[in-house]
Amino acid sequence: MSLISIERKVLQANDELAAENRNLFKQKKIFAINMISSPGSGKTSLIEQTISRMKHRMNIAVITGDIQTNLDAERIDKLSVPVVQIITNGGCHLDAGLVRNAFSEIQTHEIDLLIIENVGNLVCPSGYDLGEDCKIAVISVTEGDDKPLKYPAVFMNSEAVIINKTDLLPHLRCSVDTLRSNALSVQSKLGVFTTSCYSGEGLDAWLDWLDGRINNAGVEKND
Amino acid sequence: MSLISIERKVLQANDELAAENRNLFKQKKIFAINMISSPGSGKTSLIEQTISRMKHRMNIAVITGDIQTNLDAERIDKLSVPVVQIITNGGCHLDAGLVRNAFSEIQTHEIDLLIIENVGNLVCPSGYDLGEDCKIAVISVTEGDDKPLKYPAVFMNSEAVIINKTDLLPHLRCSVDTLRSNALSVQSKLGVFTTSCYSGEGLDAWLDWLDGRINNAGVEKND
Repeated sequence: MSLISIERKVLQANDELAAENRNLFKQKKIFAINMISSPGSGKTSLIEQTISRMKHRMNIAVITGDIQTNLDAERIDKLSVPVVQIITNGGCHLDAGLVRNAFSEIQTHEIDLLIIENVGNLVCPSGYDLGEDCKIAVISVTEGDDKPLKYPAVFMNSEAVIINKTDLLPHLRCSVDTLRSNALSVQSKLGVFTTSCYSGEGLDAWLDWLDGRINNAGVEKND
Repeated sequence: MSLISIERKVLQANDELAAENRNLFKQKKIFAINMISSPGSGKTSLIEQTISRMKHRMNIAVITGDIQTNLDAERIDKLSVPVVQIITNGGCHLDAGLVRNAFSEIQTHEIDLLIIENVGNLVCPSGYDLGEDCKIAVISVTEGDDKPLKYPAVFMNSEAVIINKTDLLPHLRCSVDTLRSNALSVQSKLGVFTTSCYSGEGLDAWLDWLDGRINNAGVEKND
């Protein structure tokens, strides 16, 4: 586990750096996803589950962003995959330069799938290209079924949305059907997955989609 | 209900405008609170409960900010208090200029308590003074008990934190004691309230605190 602590700053030319990241990942045949959600949607648990179920058949690495603490990296580190914690010291999103610096800490590893866990924020991260192959929105059913309408950008810019913590549905006034249709009303091509890291529900469907997406991108090293 | 739709822009001199707002509120003997949380923490439900339980003894108005939609203002409007919806069109926080414009829509009303519901974002709003008397952080127990450590700024800058949705605790791996102690480790003077808008638990304690805070500020018109 590496730790990078940065001062908050506005970086210029994010898109240029993101394009460089994208070229670098392509050259190294790395498929990269950028996971975006509010705090507490269960991103880290989803990443833990994804790693546990996929790491026997591909090499996975994680870059995780937080305002403060390296709690998330400590969790991922237990799964024995390369992980870099970016502490933004107040910064509300990751940007391409931060990801580039973090990636330099792990680039000597063999990596097939790079999972970037963004800062917990449903708003700002959606506007920053990190050089990823696709953005994945995560939303917990505890947040309410109206959220895609109120925070549309992340749903507009993502390829898939994971509706998480479905084990809590019996205790909530949240309709997954409404949440799904609100997300699809923002962007009709979204892949929609309903998952619970507690019960394991829906994780296979998410992983099948991710597998397919990686295969379609043609980044596998051993074709 | 009024509706203001703005283009996202970086405003200069936010602090200067916030000071002007503060003077204006003081002159009109209005106590203003700025409620900050992630999406789906239950801010709007808390505001509904606060209004329902206090409006018989003081005049309340609401300014509510969202990236898109006026769903929140529609909910508040049903309680027959003046409400202005600010749609930020992507902007991740309210600022003093937006609040000033919104306030101009309702300033002819008699107002004792102005509740400003910020955009759902635990990060960016905490850095923007709106001219409020105090910031109130809201966090749902569904978000996890580590969040004050990972997103400390809002807890640092608030006078109180409302730990909401406690009715869900039996179904979660979240310790309210840990959440409380993590919040207090960031700022030891925080008022901490645990509430459920579903069961009504803890709302009286929050309202007692708010009443006391308003009295201490000496903004009551009929002393």
